[in-house]
Amino acid sequence: MPELRQNFFTKEWVIIATERAKRPEELATHRVVQPIPEFVESCPFCPGNESKTPPEVLRYPANSNPWAVRVIPNKFAALSSELQPTRSLQHLRRRIEGFGFHEVIIDSPDHSRYMGLLSDAHVASILRVYRERYNALSLDHRVNHITIFKNHGADAGASLAHPHSQLIATPVIPSQVRHRLFEALRHYDDAGECMFCHMVEREVEDQTRVVLKSERFVAMEVFASATPFATHIFPLRHMASFGDISEMEVVDLARVLRTLLAKIYVGLENPDLNFTVRSGPAEYAAARHFHWYVSVIPRLTRVAGFELGSGMFINSVLPEAAAEYLRKVAVEKVAGAAMGQ
Amino acid sequence: MPELRQNFFTKEWVIIATERAKRPEELATHRVVQPIPEFVESCPFCPGNESKTPPEVLRYPANSNPWAVRVIPNKFAALSSELQPTRSLQHLRRRIEGFGFHEVIIDSPDHSRYMGLLSDAHVASILRVYRERYNALSLDHRVNHITIFKNHGADAGASLAHPHSQLIATPVIPSQVRHRLFEALRHYDDAGECMFCHMVEREVEDQTRVVLKSERFVAMEVFASATPFATHIFPLRHMASFGDISEMEVVDLARVLRTLLAKIYVGLENPDLNFTVRSGPAEYAAARHFHWYVSVIPRLTRVAGFELGSGMFINSVLPEAAAEYLRKVAVEKVAGAAMGQ
Repeated sequence: MPELRQNFFTKEWVIIATERAKRPEELATHRVVQPIPEFVESCPFCPGNESKTPPEVLRYPANSNPWAVRVIPNKFAALSSELQPTRSLQHLRRRIEGFGFHEVIIDSPDHSRYMGLLSDAHVASILRVYRERYNALSLDHRVNHITIFKNHGADAGASLAHPHSQLIATPVIPSQVRHRLFEALRHYDDAGECMFCHMVEREVEDQTRVVLKSERFVAMEVFASATPFATHIFPLRHMASFGDISEMEVVDLARVLRTLLAKIYVGLENPDLNFTVRSGPAEYAAARHFHWYVSVIPRLTRVAGFELGSGMFINSVLPEAAAEYLRKVAVEKVAGAAMGQ
Repeated sequence: MPELRQNFFTKEWVIIATERAKRPEELATHRVVQPIPEFVESCPFCPGNESKTPPEVLRYPANSNPWAVRVIPNKFAALSSELQPTRSLQHLRRRIEGFGFHEVIIDSPDHSRYMGLLSDAHVASILRVYRERYNALSLDHRVNHITIFKNHGADAGASLAHPHSQLIATPVIPSQVRHRLFEALRHYDDAGECMFCHMVEREVEDQTRVVLKSERFVAMEVFASATPFATHIFPLRHMASFGDISEMEVVDLARVLRTLLAKIYVGLENPDLNFTVRSGPAEYAAARHFHWYVSVIPRLTRVAGFELGSGMFINSVLPEAAAEYLRKVAVEKVAGAAMGQ
């Protein structure tokens, strides 16, 4: 029987379409694995080609050679830090000059190594770089919101194959983020608690949608998931801003994120995928009503006219079935292949 | 210089990324046109195969043979009219049984004839069928909102090649629609006018984003367009619900919609595409603050991690350049090829 489920955070309804239900394994890509070389001479992100990128923002570890992680400005930046966020209004048409930061985080020197196949220690280094850039850019008073994200594969919007992440700092808080902050605040005022903390606690009790849990994080399928296998990783400690993640939490999140990515890689046969750090804006760092998380979205289906016309999604995979499937995927082998070990 | 623009209806900001700017013609698909047969024996939507579909809901003209347009229930319906919209709540997790209607409108008997290549008169028949089903289903008190949409091409979510449209009636008003109603109401309370009427008037004066205008409708590029060539068709008369479209307006809209689809077909070389009728819910038919429109969205780009993580979009085509490009595309030839003439 089909059902509608309401997303707890956005209040959007999603149709879980059991009449078109797919078993999780039916969504595997059945992609032929093409061997990828570790080094590609023409790749601007490969070691030795550092001069082909715009001047480096950060190298990790500092002054290291070879480096583990590099941050550079995006050569085709969507926003420019040379501009000022000057606003104008003409007949109710509002504009802001395109001020902002658009950076690329090169995950590792290895051209072939998807994040799910790196070592936990290396993923921790990437997360440290995320945090460092997040906190540095948050100090700029013109910045209102920062989105950290990864595009893996052409269908997920990646234009270069060398594994990398990106960061865009905007002079506005997106309307969608405002809307979530508002719903979260309303729950806080009604119930006197962070709705994310509440939901995480119930889901951990319930178990059915949990994929994996560590001391400090839990990865779980979303109750009203808009798309198949959309997975959230929540810190168990209340924290509104990603910038406040502790060193112990970085190490723990690295293991959970890397394991989840490896499970998706193995279980769904390397689908194109996005993930994003959904953090409250830095000015809300102390907020009791908001909670950051990582949202991992395999790109297994297409958005069609109904979704574009209503904002509602039709999902053909039960989140509980997706969780059960991912729990069972063994990733010891791919984890053992991690670089530098 | 890149800039941010605010969508007047949703208040969402969009990045118009001029550093990655594309000339409109660069987005043409350069697709090799494969000749499509008018009749395919195995196609359930082709004439003679009527018994292969679920029992017909409507035939237009009534009792005609051959028919011009047919409506059938979707064989793989996302929602079921056999269920009741019973609500349940468990630990703040809300569900509704999957009640609803999911219908398919077969555009014409011709397997090969994309809507932009039909005659204006035939498109008017399709619009009459949309209106008839919209108004019939609006009478069901369990229905809260109706979305009419078209998926053209696999990237736009079409699973059958025979041109068809769809309609989904849901037992809830989508949160996204609620949000737009709220913003529109706020403008009405502030300014004492429908914000859509206001905006349409300014855009018609301004001309730069107008693609074509008739006596009763205007097709124009969106000032803060999230994706390249997203085009809205607005009725010039204030009307909150599509169900209230008059016979004269049906005839006029048919010509504007068909011409726009033909311009996109020729100018962008038959891209995959969605369109959707964005109507206020039937209960708001008398509302002074809302205004229905048709949203046409060519699927020329991919949504990536930034969009998924923030709700903000990066658009690399200036809406003014897209409008100028579409204005110049001549479609007399494809219009002359319309069926039944």
